[in-house]
Amino acid sequence: MERMLIKDVSKNVGKEVTFCGWLNNKRSSGKVHFLEIRDGTGYIQSVYADADTKILDTIGLVAHESSVSMKGIVNEHPRKPGTYELQLTGIEIISQAIDFPISKKEHGPEFLLANRHLWLRSKKQWAIMRIRNKVIYSSMDFFHKENFIKIDAPIITPVACEGTTTLFDIDYFDLGKGYLSQSGQLYIEAAIFAHNRVYDFGPVFRAEKSNTRKHLIEFWMLDAEMAYCDHEQNMSMQEKFMKHVIKDVLESCKEELEILQRDTTILEKIIHSSFERMTHADVVKFLRSKGSAITDQDDLGAQDETILGNEFNKPIFIEKWPKQIKAFYMKRDPNNPNVVLGDDLIVPEGYGEIFGGSQREDNYDVLLDIMKEEKLSLDDFGWYLDLRKYGSVPHSGFGMGLERMVSWLSGTQHIRETIPFPRLLNRIRP
Amino acid sequence: MERMLIKDVSKNVGKEVTFCGWLNNKRSSGKVHFLEIRDGTGYIQSVYADADTKILDTIGLVAHESSVSMKGIVNEHPRKPGTYELQLTGIEIISQAIDFPISKKEHGPEFLLANRHLWLRSKKQWAIMRIRNKVIYSSMDFFHKENFIKIDAPIITPVACEGTTTLFDIDYFDLGKGYLSQSGQLYIEAAIFAHNRVYDFGPVFRAEKSNTRKHLIEFWMLDAEMAYCDHEQNMSMQEKFMKHVIKDVLESCKEELEILQRDTTILEKIIHSSFERMTHADVVKFLRSKGSAITDQDDLGAQDETILGNEFNKPIFIEKWPKQIKAFYMKRDPNNPNVVLGDDLIVPEGYGEIFGGSQREDNYDVLLDIMKEEKLSLDDFGWYLDLRKYGSVPHSGFGMGLERMVSWLSGTQHIRETIPFPRLLNRIRP
Repeated sequence: MERMLIKDVSKNVGKEVTFCGWLNNKRSSGKVHFLEIRDGTGYIQSVYADADTKILDTIGLVAHESSVSMKGIVNEHPRKPGTYELQLTGIEIISQAIDFPISKKEHGPEFLLANRHLWLRSKKQWAIMRIRNKVIYSSMDFFHKENFIKIDAPIITPVACEGTTTLFDIDYFDLGKGYLSQSGQLYIEAAIFAHNRVYDFGPVFRAEKSNTRKHLIEFWMLDAEMAYCDHEQNMSMQEKFMKHVIKDVLESCKEELEILQRDTTILEKIIHSSFERMTHADVVKFLRSKGSAITDQDDLGAQDETILGNEFNKPIFIEKWPKQIKAFYMKRDPNNPNVVLGDDLIVPEGYGEIFGGSQREDNYDVLLDIMKEEKLSLDDFGWYLDLRKYGSVPHSGFGMGLERMVSWLSGTQHIRETIPFPRLLNRIRP
Repeated sequence: MERMLIKDVSKNVGKEVTFCGWLNNKRSSGKVHFLEIRDGTGYIQSVYADADTKILDTIGLVAHESSVSMKGIVNEHPRKPGTYELQLTGIEIISQAIDFPISKKEHGPEFLLANRHLWLRSKKQWAIMRIRNKVIYSSMDFFHKENFIKIDAPIITPVACEGTTTLFDIDYFDLGKGYLSQSGQLYIEAAIFAHNRVYDFGPVFRAEKSNTRKHLIEFWMLDAEMAYCDHEQNMSMQEKFMKHVIKDVLESCKEELEILQRDTTILEKIIHSSFERMTHADVVKFLRSKGSAITDQDDLGAQDETILGNEFNKPIFIEKWPKQIKAFYMKRDPNNPNVVLGDDLIVPEGYGEIFGGSQREDNYDVLLDIMKEEKLSLDDFGWYLDLRKYGSVPHSGFGMGLERMVSWLSGTQHIRETIPFPRLLNRIRP
């Protein structure tokens, strides 16, 4: 008999089928035995109340996390329509698992992280990885349909894009040091002149000595860049993109969100309302009125982001930032040269900044002056200046931190659970 | 007037529209002026035969690669149906490009690579990057529809997965050395126990002192892994996947393939015929009959791959390799313990090996013995052995080198042109 996938169970009611998977749970109530297996596409409970000795022996023997094949007849649960059970008619142990290290009892985070290769099997981790997968696919699909071309920025770069203190370096043959990329943005800007709209989506690195629940040493970043696009259009695209991903996750990950007990009330509302837009100056005024010590030259603290998120319960663009606290490539506001046309997109529920973007400085002379001010070497960034020398156009773009997005949508407090094998200050294994 | 994208030109015949893009070409024939622009979504020629002084002055002034906005009426070409022209009614220079470094004359590869940020704009490079984009999207789409979950393997790893001589290392805080990943395979194997079918798709690194037209230091690799899947099923999945991508590229990249003058006869045939399957032993016999010096313990040379490709003109699985020349994790053939259930997928037209896969050793004791033989540390690979300890299942997987696939489909001889910013032995910039 061919094996079926659990996700297709509803198509097989009344039929005898075989599922191959792993034993997730086992319990008995008198002479009735319940075995829950998963096969990666879903979970199903099988019930056995007969008296076949061979089957009973196997049920007695099979341990948590053993690989098994189970044969049985599919029934819809009499009191829970849409839920299916297997009336067991056969069971075979493919490979027994003796003393699987992760049990139902509480384990400390270090133990779980050291056993990440096994921890991935737990129901919550399964649900989070599936939401991550959906965010990735939904993002790629969005950009594909919006005519963006994927341009993979290099990981090994000759210089730092943002700051020089948090870089990993390698020896690059006879060419000296290479550095692991912190952002692909500058590179993909070069490709808009060929492709108009481009994006990249790959790993980036921050050698930061921070160990908070929001930090990863290695994480995935999506960068999008658009020719002939200004600050306003840039924010509109971010809003459209974020809503698209939220909608996809809410529609396709119902089971996962339920496993995670994610209250989706706020997410549901967000896809049907407009995002808030506030200038940095107005945000500072508002936060000070709520007791924050933030000044008009400060970035927001985590606490500030939470206050703001709780006030509006929807995403907020903070735009027009003081130029001192933003990157050199952001375009100055023509109406106020002290601020730049950048935006941070803060989400509610305590998850803070998830997207950040800006219109880019497209004037050769202005950019050259800024680069001199910031002491950026023309040897290193001459190619980037070239983009303003040959057919410069107004252009804008933004970035999304994948794991922050997954944390928010899945309601996961610790970002380390949103990536398959987290790299942390004190963790490089497995 | 709102700007239109060139890809939508056919919907606007007879209408006056504006395109924003870059000047790709300019020539005059008597009093008729021809200007070709591109906007990233396509190319269009505009024609001007009137006598407006302002327009004529601008046409005279505008230089190659300047950014321009062009207004005009869309006409279908009288003698070439499906080709469209713009009858120019207005032109504006957004930013003039003076002396764009790349011209129609021949440039050496080092000059072009040093100007990769500008070289990306040339028509051939545009076409190759669009084919790359299509291969990426088509791959993600295939795995999504086949119920694979994307599991991103880490880039920073504590040990080498394949060989130790070609690794880049970094200092990982207080934990000693970290290494840049050469393959995500071992990691994603852990995730099949949670998700059944998984894949990853990301950059990998080989610090190899080779400088051939087939080598990159940094390239993109797709790895797929399937639980409850044997060697035969693994080859079937590879064949289905490769055909899917070829079909997508042939259907959606007609213009790009034409620009590259790619003869697609062989590709067209491949999607409608079965791939060849030969054992390594039979391949060796065949190659020796053609004059190759290969022995039954050798991997194929580039020349061998070409002979084989030319013989069949379709992809060939070479299966059942001598265990000595393949990786430790490949499963021994139950019928002949000297060979492993691995496959290399060789494509015709001189492009060699593009996919490689195997059934994995799933028996704890056998794998432990092999690891001892190969002196692999249990400290480093204990977690990988765990996968055989707790609910082991038959499983298989394969990898695709993205740039090799793009080289073949686009007919590009040098792999360095198939990645946006190639990293080579002597090249880390821009």
